[in-house]
Amino acid sequence: MKIVCTQENLNKGLSLVSNIANKSSNLPILNNVLLKADKEGLTLITTDLEIGIKALVRSKIEEQGEFTVDAKLLHNFVSFLPKENIELNLQEDSLEIKSSNQETSIKGLVAEDFPLIPDMEKTNMVELPVQEFKKGLHQVILAASLDTSRIEINAVNFDFQNNNLVLAATDSYRLAEKKLKLANGQKTSLIIPLKTLQELSRILNEQAEKKLKIYFNDNQILFEFDGVELTSRVIDGKYPDYNQIIPAQFKTEAKCEINKLVPAIKSVALFCKQGINDIRLSLDSKKQKIVIATASSHTGTSVAKVDAKISGEDNDIVFNYRYLLDGLAQLGSSEVNIKMNNNASPGLLQPVNDDKYIYLVMPIRQ
Amino acid sequence: MKIVCTQENLNKGLSLVSNIANKSSNLPILNNVLLKADKEGLTLITTDLEIGIKALVRSKIEEQGEFTVDAKLLHNFVSFLPKENIELNLQEDSLEIKSSNQETSIKGLVAEDFPLIPDMEKTNMVELPVQEFKKGLHQVILAASLDTSRIEINAVNFDFQNNNLVLAATDSYRLAEKKLKLANGQKTSLIIPLKTLQELSRILNEQAEKKLKIYFNDNQILFEFDGVELTSRVIDGKYPDYNQIIPAQFKTEAKCEINKLVPAIKSVALFCKQGINDIRLSLDSKKQKIVIATASSHTGTSVAKVDAKISGEDNDIVFNYRYLLDGLAQLGSSEVNIKMNNNASPGLLQPVNDDKYIYLVMPIRQ
Repeated sequence: MKIVCTQENLNKGLSLVSNIANKSSNLPILNNVLLKADKEGLTLITTDLEIGIKALVRSKIEEQGEFTVDAKLLHNFVSFLPKENIELNLQEDSLEIKSSNQETSIKGLVAEDFPLIPDMEKTNMVELPVQEFKKGLHQVILAASLDTSRIEINAVNFDFQNNNLVLAATDSYRLAEKKLKLANGQKTSLIIPLKTLQELSRILNEQAEKKLKIYFNDNQILFEFDGVELTSRVIDGKYPDYNQIIPAQFKTEAKCEINKLVPAIKSVALFCKQGINDIRLSLDSKKQKIVIATASSHTGTSVAKVDAKISGEDNDIVFNYRYLLDGLAQLGSSEVNIKMNNNASPGLLQPVNDDKYIYLVMPIRQ
Repeated sequence: MKIVCTQENLNKGLSLVSNIANKSSNLPILNNVLLKADKEGLTLITTDLEIGIKALVRSKIEEQGEFTVDAKLLHNFVSFLPKENIELNLQEDSLEIKSSNQETSIKGLVAEDFPLIPDMEKTNMVELPVQEFKKGLHQVILAASLDTSRIEINAVNFDFQNNNLVLAATDSYRLAEKKLKLANGQKTSLIIPLKTLQELSRILNEQAEKKLKIYFNDNQILFEFDGVELTSRVIDGKYPDYNQIIPAQFKTEAKCEINKLVPAIKSVALFCKQGINDIRLSLDSKKQKIVIATASSHTGTSVAKVDAKISGEDNDIVFNYRYLLDGLAQLGSSEVNIKMNNNASPGLLQPVNDDKYIYLVMPIRQ
């Protein structure tokens, strides 16, 4: 195996694939990246057995071959090299790396021992603008359960409804749902592991490419963009029927500026009981104010008022302030619509003028 | 006690004093800031019993008095308030804080229980430009020992030599020394605890003021600038006579660009033995190159060459690469002078065209 490529291209490829490597102590070869030089060019491949990532690196293949070396080590090393051509050369049990002023030899393992994720057929394709998908993914991911023993909700539900893709996530304390438009229709529902989507989100942040293609079958999903393919298993299970907990109508609605509401919540929250994180939101329609107050405290008390446009009856609910802040940070608008029924029913946050996103928070009953 | 001041002024004062509070579980009142409203205005005071910090806050005193509340809590809280006037009001066992849209009450403790650092007489004054002192402090602090059981070197030596202030620090693996010019002369030598200087350095970073005044006696030192006073004990002991280990002359000198040397060291260092951190520097006067290589390794080997102007005989030394990088990061110049004698004698780093700073590193004997 002998390859010539630029430092920039190799470094970019390694930054895409190396993050999921290096997390397994049981199977040391999973720390490695597989370098595969064939007619198609140089492909970098990593896997953690659940996710597989492939990135094509523009390069000149002088001799075909394949080999594996520690992914993080190679990535760190290449990141320090100057922006110039690099020559990669397989020599017995080591990968030799030559640049103009540096010669390096990294010990590695043969490619035959590398566990490959089986290639999946590229069927059932949908195409999405990367930026919209990324924003939607961020908006729902924050509500997914972090409890890895609850695999159905340690995930995001992808519901393909012909010309809509509905993303949904919940940890049973809050629920986020985002509707995205699709040009072409598919009809199915898949549960995608949170870990897959965190990795996808990380990789998409470094991408300039405009279109994302998604392929799927009953067992696997494949995200493709700009020479990168991320393959993941899908979760075999049934996603909770969350629509029943979204209230059909609300008794009180308040509209206010997010950059006034957030510091008010944060300052009052300094005094709430840690672990419970309880603060009280009162919607006062006569005074047209949202009143935020400590719900319980031993260090002090605080009451803050924020101007709002409030319609409907007065209302009074206790929330975990962290869940409120999480949602407010991802609305992507300058104003929020807050909708409530009573102190036992969930409250809803929505960006003003955008009904494609909802963020629902359960109240703390006092 | 009743005080009116702006959010900006109170927030700035709290950012200066609150860092050293909140670290004691034995004496809970040390978590607090003392607010003292008298004829001079509002003074904020914190202490950890070794260091005391006072900051004067511009404000209108409507009623004199004093009280203490949790410093971090008050600072966090004030930082979230809008930029407007704030009213502070003592009510029984609580501090009331009113701004236009928020009313807050923080429980506190009476001022009588607050342990004050005794005021020191302002004698033996020297004056320094803040920026120069700050840079010099950063340049030596990095070499101070972090071993709190070795109090004389878990410190920086302040040697006032009439019109020079010589700062020095060592952890016995490396030594940094910086000479600063003084307008007025004093003659004494004081050992100042590292912790004091870390705090001073943090506070000076937020300061626009140009002049720093230093006062001292045999037991205490006082740094004063812009309404802030930081008082600290000095260490009762003798600083090691480090001058004897600085070689009077060198057999090899190399001059090279720091931004080429640093990535070369970092990339080679990826392969060195962790914990030993050993890399080999060879100065090749014929080729006019510094050759950086792994000194020992099991993951691979690397050899990098960096262009340099080398005079004197060829040389070859093994260093802990972390100590090299620490020094290179603080030279404050684009080129470094590296000076050596042999593989058993310390190497010296200096900024090009600046003999006021030296950074000495002990070799690793192989």
